[in-house]
Amino acid sequence: MKLVIVGGVAGGASAAARARRLDEAAEIVILERGPDLSFANCGLPYYLGGEIQQRSKLLVTSLERLKVRYKLDARPHAEVTRIDRDGKRVMVRDRTCGREYSETYDKLILSPGARPRVPDIPGGDLPGVFTLRTLEDTDRIFARLKDVKHAVLMGGGFISLEVAENLAHRGIRVTVVERNHQLLMPFDPEMTTPLVKALRAKGVELILGGKVTSIIPDASGTLRAALADGKALDADLVLAGIGVEPESHLAAEAGLELGVRGAIRVNRHMQTSDPDIYAAGDVVEVSDPISGQNQVVPLGGPANRQGRIAADHIFGRGSTYRGTQGTAILRLFDLTAACTGASEKTLKKAGMGYRAAYLHPNNHAGYFPGAQALCLKVLFDAQDGRVLGAQAVGGDGVDKRIDVLAMAIQGKMTVYDLEEAELCYAPPYGSAKDPVNMAGFVCAGILRGDQPQVTVGELEEQRKGGTIQAVVDVRGADEFARGHLPGAINIPVDELRGRLGDVPPGRIAVNCQVGMRGYLATRILLAAGRDVVNLSGGYLAWELFEGARRTA
Amino acid sequence: MKLVIVGGVAGGASAAARARRLDEAAEIVILERGPDLSFANCGLPYYLGGEIQQRSKLLVTSLERLKVRYKLDARPHAEVTRIDRDGKRVMVRDRTCGREYSETYDKLILSPGARPRVPDIPGGDLPGVFTLRTLEDTDRIFARLKDVKHAVLMGGGFISLEVAENLAHRGIRVTVVERNHQLLMPFDPEMTTPLVKALRAKGVELILGGKVTSIIPDASGTLRAALADGKALDADLVLAGIGVEPESHLAAEAGLELGVRGAIRVNRHMQTSDPDIYAAGDVVEVSDPISGQNQVVPLGGPANRQGRIAADHIFGRGSTYRGTQGTAILRLFDLTAACTGASEKTLKKAGMGYRAAYLHPNNHAGYFPGAQALCLKVLFDAQDGRVLGAQAVGGDGVDKRIDVLAMAIQGKMTVYDLEEAELCYAPPYGSAKDPVNMAGFVCAGILRGDQPQVTVGELEEQRKGGTIQAVVDVRGADEFARGHLPGAINIPVDELRGRLGDVPPGRIAVNCQVGMRGYLATRILLAAGRDVVNLSGGYLAWELFEGARRTA
Repeated sequence: MKLVIVGGVAGGASAAARARRLDEAAEIVILERGPDLSFANCGLPYYLGGEIQQRSKLLVTSLERLKVRYKLDARPHAEVTRIDRDGKRVMVRDRTCGREYSETYDKLILSPGARPRVPDIPGGDLPGVFTLRTLEDTDRIFARLKDVKHAVLMGGGFISLEVAENLAHRGIRVTVVERNHQLLMPFDPEMTTPLVKALRAKGVELILGGKVTSIIPDASGTLRAALADGKALDADLVLAGIGVEPESHLAAEAGLELGVRGAIRVNRHMQTSDPDIYAAGDVVEVSDPISGQNQVVPLGGPANRQGRIAADHIFGRGSTYRGTQGTAILRLFDLTAACTGASEKTLKKAGMGYRAAYLHPNNHAGYFPGAQALCLKVLFDAQDGRVLGAQAVGGDGVDKRIDVLAMAIQGKMTVYDLEEAELCYAPPYGSAKDPVNMAGFVCAGILRGDQPQVTVGELEEQRKGGTIQAVVDVRGADEFARGHLPGAINIPVDELRGRLGDVPPGRIAVNCQVGMRGYLATRILLAAGRDVVNLSGGYLAWELFEGARRTA
Repeated sequence: MKLVIVGGVAGGASAAARARRLDEAAEIVILERGPDLSFANCGLPYYLGGEIQQRSKLLVTSLERLKVRYKLDARPHAEVTRIDRDGKRVMVRDRTCGREYSETYDKLILSPGARPRVPDIPGGDLPGVFTLRTLEDTDRIFARLKDVKHAVLMGGGFISLEVAENLAHRGIRVTVVERNHQLLMPFDPEMTTPLVKALRAKGVELILGGKVTSIIPDASGTLRAALADGKALDADLVLAGIGVEPESHLAAEAGLELGVRGAIRVNRHMQTSDPDIYAAGDVVEVSDPISGQNQVVPLGGPANRQGRIAADHIFGRGSTYRGTQGTAILRLFDLTAACTGASEKTLKKAGMGYRAAYLHPNNHAGYFPGAQALCLKVLFDAQDGRVLGAQAVGGDGVDKRIDVLAMAIQGKMTVYDLEEAELCYAPPYGSAKDPVNMAGFVCAGILRGDQPQVTVGELEEQRKGGTIQAVVDVRGADEFARGHLPGAINIPVDELRGRLGDVPPGRIAVNCQVGMRGYLATRILLAAGRDVVNLSGGYLAWELFEGARRTA
């Protein structure tokens, strides 16, 4: 068996190591266009910021080790220029000397990754305009950093925000320009409000709904980024973090079937339309296990597993890829934002029947020092309660809850299962009722009809439509005075039983700070025969939406 | 509906709050023997240590709030002395004045908790010998602490170790005496080795297999704890953390059916043998969802959920309790130890067919600062690969992985599911191949036959029995020189292919540091036609067992 792998980073390196473990005798050739195989792509922003201090740390597995330990014929600077499917060979150009040669294969794995989008605007290809994908990119940016006082980052996605944080750590003034009206598109807009606040609190300038239309250098080397609204930003460095495109031209030229956004279409064994050719990583189309729709999701974890599965199938194993549910996480200064499964946007687009709930539980026992509220949104099937998606923003413990909910999604578990989840509890780590349990209680309560709720969006629609006639804020008078929903009246929950006559007539909504007192108030009013719903996530959820509205 | 609840802490308080939410009109009476309802039982050790500074923080919900917000007839100092099932009433003694009265019920929930065992030895009931269960206990110990230079803690369970840490934080010299030869009985012994090391490194004296036979005060108030081996410890305070017994005497006297260890037997709705009486919390018998056996597991999370389920069923909901899988966690200085599901001991006792695997993956990307290896043991069904249990010890990220595995157990997921788990990955939080994925790879590899492995125990048996003839350590010469298995020979993995002739004949085991290089070596040797197994968890696992052996 001669296996040739195109691309030597996440998917390719995983495929190669797995192939060697499955077959000691196989001839395994890795052809990597760049100088580095198996480098830590996800670590690059942290090297720019100085948190990872040694460049050598970014080389996860040395070329020497790939050759000796895994007995791989690993070739950097080897660019595959064409796939000859009939001849079962690839044409290769050695980028160090320009020599062209061909390499035959029994099986071929394509893992060339994705290409960062270069801004398609005048000046988008200037020397001071960078993208960040490879170690070479990183070296180029790093070499320039000492002279950078102001950086403009185009795009508000994961990589751009990681770079923003890291450049800010270095004392560089940073401006992020995102064309959409929200950061981090995999999240629902309201869940990004805390990130907007955090960026601004840390002195990062953020322009949402902004569009860089041209980049023009002046004589001193400063780059002037002109915005569509007529403003301009003078920067010493521009980084374009505006997404990536599957590097599928080889596959396309070879006539392999492509899918959405030109990504290579594969079956569940990562096999392309040519049974001798597999593909893995950021170049492939994957299915969304929630909606069943095809998508492209460039993430390191999936890339590694896909490479492994491709190798498995080539060496006779039946492993299958289950699709990419889109679990992702970002550290942004003191905040963590993470998501898994479907967003509300996705569910709406797919026309799925879902419900949403918002919570703000503490990350661990409130009586233990350092407790911090995290903001959690859970999406679940309106009929059977299956968990469909979750998003969380906060401090410690966000990653844990999203990982737990990611398992729930993978295991096709329901919100009723979340109620009964038995998770670690000691005061430094959680609560007797963990945020995941609380999410279960709230979501299951909605489905059982015990907790009639509306989201902020539903509340506003129903107020406009006249189906909700009033909002009663059941927090204390002091909390109410610090801010409340427009037109809300204040009846603290502890007074509610004695003041039922003060509650306005008709269908009403109640709100508190996070949804807990509102829940009790809803129960009291239901028992009094009132038509009432609770605002999911309370005033804090309303503030999330307000934040998103201000940026929209 | 008149609901009477005996006991106002975890299970009782949860039942009461849930009952109120389900029925605004119900009369709900909580009878709590002690002065405090709804206090933070699990926070008591941290108040002793000063990490929780305000005593008021331990009162989770004030009596006033229970009365006003939840409209509960909450009575502290109200001791129930008898249940009259025929008359559907309980006899109550007001401990503030001695007045006796009766209270009728439609439904009764028993949540009296568990009673700490008092050492059944001479002096076990001296004033300086404490147990820690209530706020009153805490106040008594706290009042004494300023004069305590040396404390003897009897028992090496969760509470005792939490107190050990906290007293050490206060600068008190601490000696822990545990009669078993291991700490934390829910764990397998080898997994407690890092805890033993941590205690000793922090200056806590630890006597395993030690037995206090009597406690004798001297004139100055010092307590002399005599040990079975003739030694004695002079202490200013003795704390007995030697377990708890279900407080089931009321139930027993009323003729309710009891289960193991005298705990109250309940059905899945938390209903006792009397359909009008429910029970919840540390007083009940629960089933182990893995082995199906009945057990008593005093934990805060389960108590809260049980109280909720009892209230649900009383008010017409069909909620069921799924059993207690025993998820538990301990912070011990810089370490975290957590477990979920069955231990190997339990599986052996239950006669279940299982396999075990050990891993030492990093908590997050190794190239990112602060990466720490965690020690993970996973137990899984030898046939279908279902996850049966997990234990982990390490720093940050231990709680997350055990929570994820707890969900896998609850969802009846398999090690094949762990391979495909899609968890949060960015360098500060995890790895492209998360420890949970790595666990899946190793365990599934064992079941598929790709990774023939032995545990340390199996290796030693097979070496004794002669079925394993030699051990080849495939680490580098420097690592080998720092310590290795007795009789092992050293052939570094990178030299193995060229030195196949140096490998001893017959069936052999290989080991490396954590199991990864050993895996590759196993594959190389299998391809060479050799009969070979890899030592699960490598030299580090061997050290865990060595540590456990030294204390046995």
